Amino acid sequence: MISPEKHQRMANAIRFLAMDAVEKANSGHPGMPMGCADVATVLFTRYLSFDPKNPLWPDRDRFVLSAGHGSMLIYSLLYLTGYEDMTIEDIKSFRQLGAKTAGHPEYGHASGIETTTGPLGQGIATAVGMALAEKKLADEFGSELQDHYTYVLAGDGCLMEGISQEAITLAGHLKLNKLIVFWDDNGISIDGAISLADSTDQHARFRSAGWNTIAIDGHDPEAIAAAIETAKASDKPTMIAAKTVIGFGAPNKAGTHKVHGSPLGADEIAATRKALGWEDEAFSIPADVLDAWRLAGLRSTKTRKDWEARLAAAEAEKRAEFSRRFAGELPGTLAGAIDAYKKKLAETKPTVATRKASEDALEVINGVVTETLGGSADLTGSNNTKTSQTKSITPTDFSGRYIHYGIREHGMAAAMNGIALHGGLIPYSGGFLIFSDYCRPSIRLAALMGIRVIHVLTHDSIGLGEDGPTHQPVEHMAALRAIPNLMMFRPADATETVECWQVALETKDRPSGIALTRQNLIPARTEYEERNLCAQGAYELISASDAKVSIFASGSEVEIAMQAQQQLEAKGIPARVVSVPCFELFFEQDADYQEAIIGHAPVNIAVEAGIRQGWDAIIGSTGTFIGMKSFGASGPAKELYKHFGITADAVVAAAEAKLA
Amino acid sequence: MISPEKHQRMANAIRFLAMDAVEKANSGHPGMPMGCADVATVLFTRYLSFDPKNPLWPDRDRFVLSAGHGSMLIYSLLYLTGYEDMTIEDIKSFRQLGAKTAGHPEYGHASGIETTTGPLGQGIATAVGMALAEKKLADEFGSELQDHYTYVLAGDGCLMEGISQEAITLAGHLKLNKLIVFWDDNGISIDGAISLADSTDQHARFRSAGWNTIAIDGHDPEAIAAAIETAKASDKPTMIAAKTVIGFGAPNKAGTHKVHGSPLGADEIAATRKALGWEDEAFSIPADVLDAWRLAGLRSTKTRKDWEARLAAAEAEKRAEFSRRFAGELPGTLAGAIDAYKKKLAETKPTVATRKASEDALEVINGVVTETLGGSADLTGSNNTKTSQTKSITPTDFSGRYIHYGIREHGMAAAMNGIALHGGLIPYSGGFLIFSDYCRPSIRLAALMGIRVIHVLTHDSIGLGEDGPTHQPVEHMAALRAIPNLMMFRPADATETVECWQVALETKDRPSGIALTRQNLIPARTEYEERNLCAQGAYELISASDAKVSIFASGSEVEIAMQAQQQLEAKGIPARVVSVPCFELFFEQDADYQEAIIGHAPVNIAVEAGIRQGWDAIIGSTGTFIGMKSFGASGPAKELYKHFGITADAVVAAAEAKLA
Repeated sequence: MISPEKHQRMANAIRFLAMDAVEKANSGHPGMPMGCADVATVLFTRYLSFDPKNPLWPDRDRFVLSAGHGSMLIYSLLYLTGYEDMTIEDIKSFRQLGAKTAGHPEYGHASGIETTTGPLGQGIATAVGMALAEKKLADEFGSELQDHYTYVLAGDGCLMEGISQEAITLAGHLKLNKLIVFWDDNGISIDGAISLADSTDQHARFRSAGWNTIAIDGHDPEAIAAAIETAKASDKPTMIAAKTVIGFGAPNKAGTHKVHGSPLGADEIAATRKALGWEDEAFSIPADVLDAWRLAGLRSTKTRKDWEARLAAAEAEKRAEFSRRFAGELPGTLAGAIDAYKKKLAETKPTVATRKASEDALEVINGVVTETLGGSADLTGSNNTKTSQTKSITPTDFSGRYIHYGIREHGMAAAMNGIALHGGLIPYSGGFLIFSDYCRPSIRLAALMGIRVIHVLTHDSIGLGEDGPTHQPVEHMAALRAIPNLMMFRPADATETVECWQVALETKDRPSGIALTRQNLIPARTEYEERNLCAQGAYELISASDAKVSIFASGSEVEIAMQAQQQLEAKGIPARVVSVPCFELFFEQDADYQEAIIGHAPVNIAVEAGIRQGWDAIIGSTGTFIGMKSFGASGPAKELYKHFGITADAVVAAAEAKLA
Repeated sequence: MISPEKHQRMANAIRFLAMDAVEKANSGHPGMPMGCADVATVLFTRYLSFDPKNPLWPDRDRFVLSAGHGSMLIYSLLYLTGYEDMTIEDIKSFRQLGAKTAGHPEYGHASGIETTTGPLGQGIATAVGMALAEKKLADEFGSELQDHYTYVLAGDGCLMEGISQEAITLAGHLKLNKLIVFWDDNGISIDGAISLADSTDQHARFRSAGWNTIAIDGHDPEAIAAAIETAKASDKPTMIAAKTVIGFGAPNKAGTHKVHGSPLGADEIAATRKALGWEDEAFSIPADVLDAWRLAGLRSTKTRKDWEARLAAAEAEKRAEFSRRFAGELPGTLAGAIDAYKKKLAETKPTVATRKASEDALEVINGVVTETLGGSADLTGSNNTKTSQTKSITPTDFSGRYIHYGIREHGMAAAMNGIALHGGLIPYSGGFLIFSDYCRPSIRLAALMGIRVIHVLTHDSIGLGEDGPTHQPVEHMAALRAIPNLMMFRPADATETVECWQVALETKDRPSGIALTRQNLIPARTEYEERNLCAQGAYELISASDAKVSIFASGSEVEIAMQAQQQLEAKGIPARVVSVPCFELFFEQDADYQEAIIGHAPVNIAVEAGIRQGWDAIIGSTGTFIGMKSFGASGPAKELYKHFGITADAVVAAAEAKLA
C-alpha cells in the first residue's frame, strides 16, 4: 500500500520530469502531465497490468495517452516504471532530433507507446479498436488468454473533436465495458477557458451513448482508485471525469492556459519546487521515489507469468493459432489458396466490378485467414466486404467477424488502427473512396505508424454515375498517393484485385487502400501467371516491339487503354499498355525496372478518371494525360466518360496528334 | 387552413414525384422523400418563409436538406411551390447529365438549393453557420432586417457522423435558438436497422449539448406544426425527432432498407398508387393539389414585401452597407488600404513569420472590410487570426467579430461554408495546416460550390519543429492543390501574404487556403510594387540574363532559393528565382505567361518543404526537387531542414551536378 505522502512524491516525480524536460527543450506542454500526475500514478501503481520487461505481452492492459501533447506524462511513466529503452538521457533529449522522446508519443519509438497520438481525438477512437479487439479475441480464445482493460487519458480537445462522438457511440453500442476513459477535466484549452467555446454536459453526453460516467477529484488518490474499481465492475464502458488543475503545483500559473503549451520558466519552476517541497535538481529522482516506481513496474510480473503458464497449458492448436496471430504471420495456406483462385479466374475470365471481385477474393482469403475482421461504414452491400465467413458481431455476440461500423468513417478508421495495434487481428473495412476524406487523419496515422490496416474504397471515380460530384472522387487517388508509406491500389480486374489484396495482407508494416469500381470491367488479365504482377506496382500488360506509344492506366481505365491499343494497332501504330495498380510500390523498384516499364516510346499517354497530379512522374511533364480536370457530374457512367473525354477514341486521337 | 385530406394529397404529390423520378432515372433514393413528405409539407405550407419569385431575398428562412440523398424531396418542393427554374421537365430529367436535378442537391443548379449536400453531416453543420450568420447580422442590422429561421432535415447518417457533434455543440454553446433541426427518425440505414450499428439516445445527446428536443409522429401534421411552434418559441436550438416510416405508402417495402436507395419497381409503385388512392399518372399532379402548392409558394409574398419596405425605410448608410454586403462586394477603400500597407512594408522590410504577417494584414483588412468574421479552432494565438477589431462573440453578445470555434475543425469549416452561403459576411478562420485533413470534406464542398471562405492554415511545414511528424504537414500542400477550384496560397513574406489575402478576398466565387509559417522569414520582396504579383500565381522574383538555373519555390523555401541564387552567382552561375505562391492561379494564366515564368534555363530546381507531387508540372519530370520524401521528425526547425537536406547548399550542389 502506497501512503498518501509517497503517492504525492511519486506523482511529483512525474511533474518535475515533465516541467524540467519541457524547460530544457524550451518547447512542449507541461500543464497536462502536471495536472494528470495523480491519475497516472494511481493507475500505474495500482491498476494497470503491464510489464516493462515484457512490453508486448499480449494480455497486458493497454494505456493510450489520447491527449498526446502531454507526452512527457508517458515518457516519465516509462522511465520511472523501468522500461529499459527509456533512460533519463532519453528524457533529457525530449523533443530533440533523433530522440525517442518526440514532441508527441510515437508508436515504435519506445516500448510502452501503444499508439501515436497528438492529433486530437485519435487516441480515444483508436482505443475503441483495442477494446473491440480484446472483446473479440476473448470470445475466440477465452478469458484465460485475453482478459485485459484498455485505459485512455483524454483531454477536452479529444472530446470536442467529432471523431470522439463516433468512437464513444460505437463503444457504447458494442458494450465495450473494459474500456475506461479518463477525461482530464481541467476546464482549460489553448484559447483560454473551455467555456469560451463549449458548454457540453459531458456526463449526459457519454450516458446518451450508453456509457457509465463518474465524476471525481482528479487529485484525490482514493477517489481515483474507487472510480477505477467501479469502472471495472461496470457492464458498460466508463468515462471518469477527473477534475484537475492544469499545471498542478505551479504557484502562479496553475489553472491557466499559460501552462498548457509553454515552458514554465526558471522562476516558476523554482517556485514550484518550493511549493511542492521538492529539493532535487532537474532530472534527479530521489532514490526512495524511484524505487517505489520501479516496484510498481514489477507489480504485474506474476500476472504475466500466470498468463504465460496458461498459454503454455493451452491446447496445442489454439496456442499455435494465438501465437501465430500475435506474431502477425499469415497462415501458410494463403498463397496456395490465392494461386488456385487465380487459376480459376484465368479460366472463367469474369467481367465484374472490382468491388465484386474484391468480395470474391475475400471469400477465398477469409476462408483461410482466420484473423481478418471485416466491416463497413454502413455500405456493406455497396462495398462488398461481407463474405460467407463473416457473421455480424453484435453487442452480445462477438463470435462474428464483421463490424457494422455505422456511418462513422473516421471512428472506423481509427478503430481499425487500434485493432491492428492490439494484435491478433487484421482489420479491413469498407467505405466510398470519396469519403476517405472523412477519415484521412486516421489513415495518415496508420501510415506514420506503419501498421497493417486495409481500406476497401469503392465507387472510385465518375464511373459511379448518377450520385454526382459530391460522391465522385476526382482528386482522391492523388491525395492518398501523397501520403508517405500508404500503398494505394487501383486494380483493373479480378486478377489484379486478388493480387492487390495479397500484397496488402502480406505487408505487415504498412496500411493499404484498395480503390474499386462500381461498374463492371472486362478482364485485363486472361492468362494464368504465377507471379504477383501487382507487387511491383506497375507492369507491362501488352507489349509491342518498337512501340510508338506507351499507354499507362490504372483500374477501370486499363480497359480503355487496351481498347485504344487495339485501335492503334489496327491503324498500324504499335502501342504497349502498362497497368499501374500501385504508384508507391512502382517507385520503390530499382531504376532498371522503372525504366523498362516506362519504356522509350516517343509518345507517353496516361489514362485515369482522376486528376493528372502525380502521373508526370511516369509519363513526363510532356506526356499526354487523359483524365479529369474538374469535379464530376451527375449522370449515367457511360455518358460521363464521354462527356469528360475519357475514351479510347480520345487516347487514339492524342497519340495520332503527337505522332503527326 | 389546409384540411387533413388536402395535406395528405399534397404530401402524396411529393411521394409520387419522388418515386416516379427515381423509377425513370432507374437510380436514386425514394424512401426518404416518401417518409419526410408530411414534415416537408407542413413546413413549406405553413411555416417556411420563402418566396419562389425572389429566391435570394436576404431575410428568407433557410432550408437545408442535410440528408441530401433524398434530393427528390427538395426538387419536388421547388417545382410544386413554383420556383420558375424547376419545371416538370427538370423533374423528369432527374440524375441525367446536365440536369439541374442532380443525384444530390447542388448549390447553384437551381434556386432554392441553399447548399450542396450529400456527404452526410455537412448539411446540419453548414446550417449552424447560417444560423450563426443570422444571429450576427441581426445583432448588427437589427431584427427589422435580419430575423429568420434556419431549418434542417437530417437523417440518421447525418447524426452518426462526427461532424454533427461538433456542429450541435457549437450551436448549443452559442444558443442559436433559431436553428430547428428535424431528425428523420426512421430507424433504417443502408445496412438495415439502425440498431445494427447504433444505440444512441439522440434526445439525451442533443440536450447534453444545450438543445431543446421534441419527439413527434412524423406523419401527423398537427403534431409537426405544434413542434415547430414550440421550437420557434425556444431560447435554445431545437431538435424535433420525427418518427417516420421510410418509403411511407409503399405497401410491401415501406419501413425497410430496400426502399432507401433503389427504385421501387413498377409493381410496387402501382401498389402504392392503389394504397394511397393516387390515380394520376407519373409526373402529373392533380390541378387542385398543384394549385394548393402554388398558393403555399405565394404565402410569404407579403412578408417579403414588408421586409423590402423596412429596408427602403432604413437609414441610408445602413441600407447601403446591408445591400453591399449581401451583393458580396468589398468596400471600395480596401485596395487603397492594402496599397498603403504594401508601401509601408517596402520601408520596414519586416522579418516575420507569415502567420504574424497575416495578422498584420488582417489588421489592415478588418479595419476596412466590416463583413469579415474571424475565428480559430482553439489556436488563436498560434494562427494569429484575431485583430484589434475582432472582439470575441459570446452566447449572449454577438456584437463581436470573432468565433472561438473550439477544437472542431470540421464543424468550423462547414459553419464557414454556411456563413458564406448565408451572405452578408466573409468567414475566415484558423487551424494548423496539418489539420486541414480533419475538415477536408467541407473544404471540398466549398470548392465544389464556389464560395468565398478563407482558411488560415499555419505551421505549414517541418519548420514548426518540435511538435514532430503528427503536426508537420508534408503532403498537405499537394493534397489541397489537388482539390479543383481551391486556391491554395503559400506566401513567402509579409508582402506576398497581404497580396494573397487580397486575392482571396477579391475572388467571390472560390475558397482559399493560406498556408503560413510558424518561423520567421526574411523579406523576399523589398521594393514597393503596385501590382499584386501573387495574383498570377507565380512570378519572377530574381531575374538573370542567360540564366543557367531556374529555382522555383514557395513560402518559407523562397528564402532558401534566394540564398542559393546568391551562392550560385558568386560561383559565376547565373540563376533566377521564381516565387510560386499559388499553383491554381499560375496554371490559369495564358500559355505565354506560363512559358515565360517557367523559362528556358537548362536546369530547373524546385524547393518546397513538402512532397514533389505536382511540381513536375513546373520543373518537368527531369527537374530536380529539393523537399520531403517521408514524414517529418521532432526536433528544432533548423536542424530538421538540415536533416532532410532542404538547404541552399543542397540547391547549389544539385545545380552544379546537373550543369557538370
